[in-house]
Amino acid sequence: MASDKVQIAQVYRGTFVHSTQNAPLEILEDRILGVGTDGKISFIEPAEKTDSLSAIWRFQISEVQQLGPSEFFMPGLIDTHIHAAQYCFMGTALDLPLLQWLETYTFPEEYKFRNLDYSENVYTKVVERTLSNGTTTACYFASIYTDSSLLLGEIAAKFGQRALVGKVCMDVNDSLKVYRETTEQSREETDRFINELLRRNYPLVKPIVTPRFAPSCTSDLLRQLGEIAENNDLHVQSHISETKDEMSLVETMFPESQSYTDVYLEHGLLTSKTVMAHGCHLTDDELVIFRDTGASIAHCPNSNISLCSGMLDVRNVLNKKVKLGLGTDVAGGCSVSMLDAIRRTMETSKALKINNPQHECLRIDEVFRLATLGGSQALSLDKETGNFEVGKDFDALRIDPTASESPFDVFSGDDIEIILEKFLYLGDDRNIREVFVAGRRVVPFAEPV
Amino acid sequence: MASDKVQIAQVYRGTFVHSTQNAPLEILEDRILGVGTDGKISFIEPAEKTDSLSAIWRFQISEVQQLGPSEFFMPGLIDTHIHAAQYCFMGTALDLPLLQWLETYTFPEEYKFRNLDYSENVYTKVVERTLSNGTTTACYFASIYTDSSLLLGEIAAKFGQRALVGKVCMDVNDSLKVYRETTEQSREETDRFINELLRRNYPLVKPIVTPRFAPSCTSDLLRQLGEIAENNDLHVQSHISETKDEMSLVETMFPESQSYTDVYLEHGLLTSKTVMAHGCHLTDDELVIFRDTGASIAHCPNSNISLCSGMLDVRNVLNKKVKLGLGTDVAGGCSVSMLDAIRRTMETSKALKINNPQHECLRIDEVFRLATLGGSQALSLDKETGNFEVGKDFDALRIDPTASESPFDVFSGDDIEIILEKFLYLGDDRNIREVFVAGRRVVPFAEPV
Ligand SMILES: [Zn+2]
Ligand SMILES: [Zn+2]
Repeated sequence: MASDKVQIAQVYRGTFVHSTQNAPLEILEDRILGVGTDGKISFIEPAEKTDSLSAIWRFQISEVQQLGPSEFFMPGLIDTHIHAAQYCFMGTALDLPLLQWLETYTFPEEYKFRNLDYSENVYTKVVERTLSNGTTTACYFASIYTDSSLLLGEIAAKFGQRALVGKVCMDVNDSLKVYRETTEQSREETDRFINELLRRNYPLVKPIVTPRFAPSCTSDLLRQLGEIAENNDLHVQSHISETKDEMSLVETMFPESQSYTDVYLEHGLLTSKTVMAHGCHLTDDELVIFRDTGASIAHCPNSNISLCSGMLDVRNVLNKKVKLGLGTDVAGGCSVSMLDAIRRTMETSKALKINNPQHECLRIDEVFRLATLGGSQALSLDKETGNFEVGKDFDALRIDPTASESPFDVFSGDDIEIILEKFLYLGDDRNIREVFVAGRRVVPFAEPV
Repeated sequence: MASDKVQIAQVYRGTFVHSTQNAPLEILEDRILGVGTDGKISFIEPAEKTDSLSAIWRFQISEVQQLGPSEFFMPGLIDTHIHAAQYCFMGTALDLPLLQWLETYTFPEEYKFRNLDYSENVYTKVVERTLSNGTTTACYFASIYTDSSLLLGEIAAKFGQRALVGKVCMDVNDSLKVYRETTEQSREETDRFINELLRRNYPLVKPIVTPRFAPSCTSDLLRQLGEIAENNDLHVQSHISETKDEMSLVETMFPESQSYTDVYLEHGLLTSKTVMAHGCHLTDDELVIFRDTGASIAHCPNSNISLCSGMLDVRNVLNKKVKLGLGTDVAGGCSVSMLDAIRRTMETSKALKINNPQHECLRIDEVFRLATLGGSQALSLDKETGNFEVGKDFDALRIDPTASESPFDVFSGDDIEIILEKFLYLGDDRNIREVFVAGRRVVPFAEPV
């Protein structure tokens, strides 16, 4: 019987915290978890079963790696929306509303990615930064340039990050005039991007169809992208209802559509594999369309505040049974860290409560779930990742709350629940001792050969 | 002539950024700055004057310390409101509104500070953490315990932090029953605290009269504390108009007063050396009283959001010519870092703009000024600190944006203004290579002897 099983590559004993569909936070103390040579979680059981597990799975007791007394494993963080090509100016240029911000700062920066050397330098830093901050899965916007976008996929694969990578499509409305494609180019290059990325067969890096957003695309282009997504059963990402100016623009450009959501729906872009960023101003009727199609929302609170775009009522979205994950939205959001996204999600919910005392605030355990399991669901990757269920890939962060350079203090009497909360509010990459994706240790980075 | 001058202890050449009354941000490139043996800035001049300055001030050119190419000095950060005795639970317990939060989490924690060993352990960590995060000046609430509060002063003095330290006063309304003094005790212990702290004659650590807030004090106690402050020309700190529940309580307890501000005014507690935390819900009429008395506001945006207290319109306060600094308000605020206070101040202003498009957002340079010069003014310490004017103490942070463990990336083409902005939004203690207070290098910490 045991001969059918994969071999066990790693075994850990200690505390594991994660979320399930039923429990926003499950703290599993003194567990033993085995990772197979296939990168998947083979078992997670109470540690008292170590002997019998060792017999069944044929590992030596001496192979069991014991976590430190305050250490724990948590699932890797899932960034459902990040613009890799905007990383250079993150933390600057936050003084304009969205549409002017795009024209003034963003398009000129993304235009630089026609250069592959420039792309390689920036994308390498993005992947390193996100990984060391615990982002095991990232859903990337690249730029309009195919080869540069392929390079992002290659770099993510090399470092071992799980990623959806999108070559951005836009055939209208760039004030720069040069950062734009024709409709035909956009379709052809999307085809080329997808075919080439699929051909490379990276196990963890896949293409995602990426119209920038409705105001950047003709109806023709949107329709063709919808067809590409459908024909190849691909993921789709875009932006929706981020700001009111943008909504007015969409109304003008697509007068025949009932709503912004309908624009994407009518062009075949709202599927169970679609993730739409923001949605600050979606109506309840639009949320029903999201729920019915299975499309999800990437909530990007840092960006929404930084660009004064609006505040998404996450509680309402969850009540409407719409899938939702968190995103950094670099560089509208000024942090690459999903811990920041967790904190800003709490803050936005609290700001909504300040405006309306009836608002039911999100709790930190719920937001922890959104950043892990919720993100995997939003990206339709919850069969592969999101928590420590047997059969899923081992995407995990080894957290050391008492690391020598830790940015916060742990006091005697702080239990694991307190320590987790302190890490979520106060911790940073200094507490993320190791990062694993599909069983492979990707942080600390391998020494360059 | 030169013989009248103090000796020069340190000379630095490089970039200095600071604020003045006229300019929220002044970037002084290739300057030379001299610090006297008295800890004060002796000169700051264009570096081309190095030779003549060396002759006048009698230092050797070889003594000049050159900053690295992307390094710069900025003024030390000034935390105008922080509860040292709440540090242990920072980053937890943020799920209740103020009054319940005090009863449930805060009073039981502060009660522990009757123990001096406990106090020493926590206060040492607080002073280390704030200093390494660049807080050169802190305005502390301790606990109601005199000896423990004196210990906080002693620790701040030992580490070399500039501090105002307050023994907290409260003679009513503690649900714990044990964390409270009689009116007489509170006055007597305040006298003892002030006399002992003044007797020790620490050059940088001074007492501050600290009624917790009106709901914790009888009119009798407030009046006596007002007299103590007046008779000794002391600083005063408290809280005001943080939440609406608190305001209702004050209205019930002090029915004869016109407003919350009047309560403090009538008890002699609103002076030009008073700093009041929060003020989220102050009316314009109350702001006029602040301006006329010279009292200031400590804006604590992290706390105000974390406890759903409200959002202070800083733009309005500045327009009303009221002095304003920033505070972390640990542990209502869940970060000890004034960089966080800067970021949250920007966010609150942007949240106000989302609610009201007419709101004129704060700019990052203005908020940089609030965290430095503004703080010194709010604490009536602007003769001593706040920027790099000749004659002020050298309270400074040496910032290394390209430190090996830096949490952000600098790209070629990033100029000093961009780099400063990235540091303010993305940096942390890893970028704060050295901290000076009154010319003494206090970070890195001296090795224990
Ligand atoms: Zn975006
Ligand atoms: Zn306070």
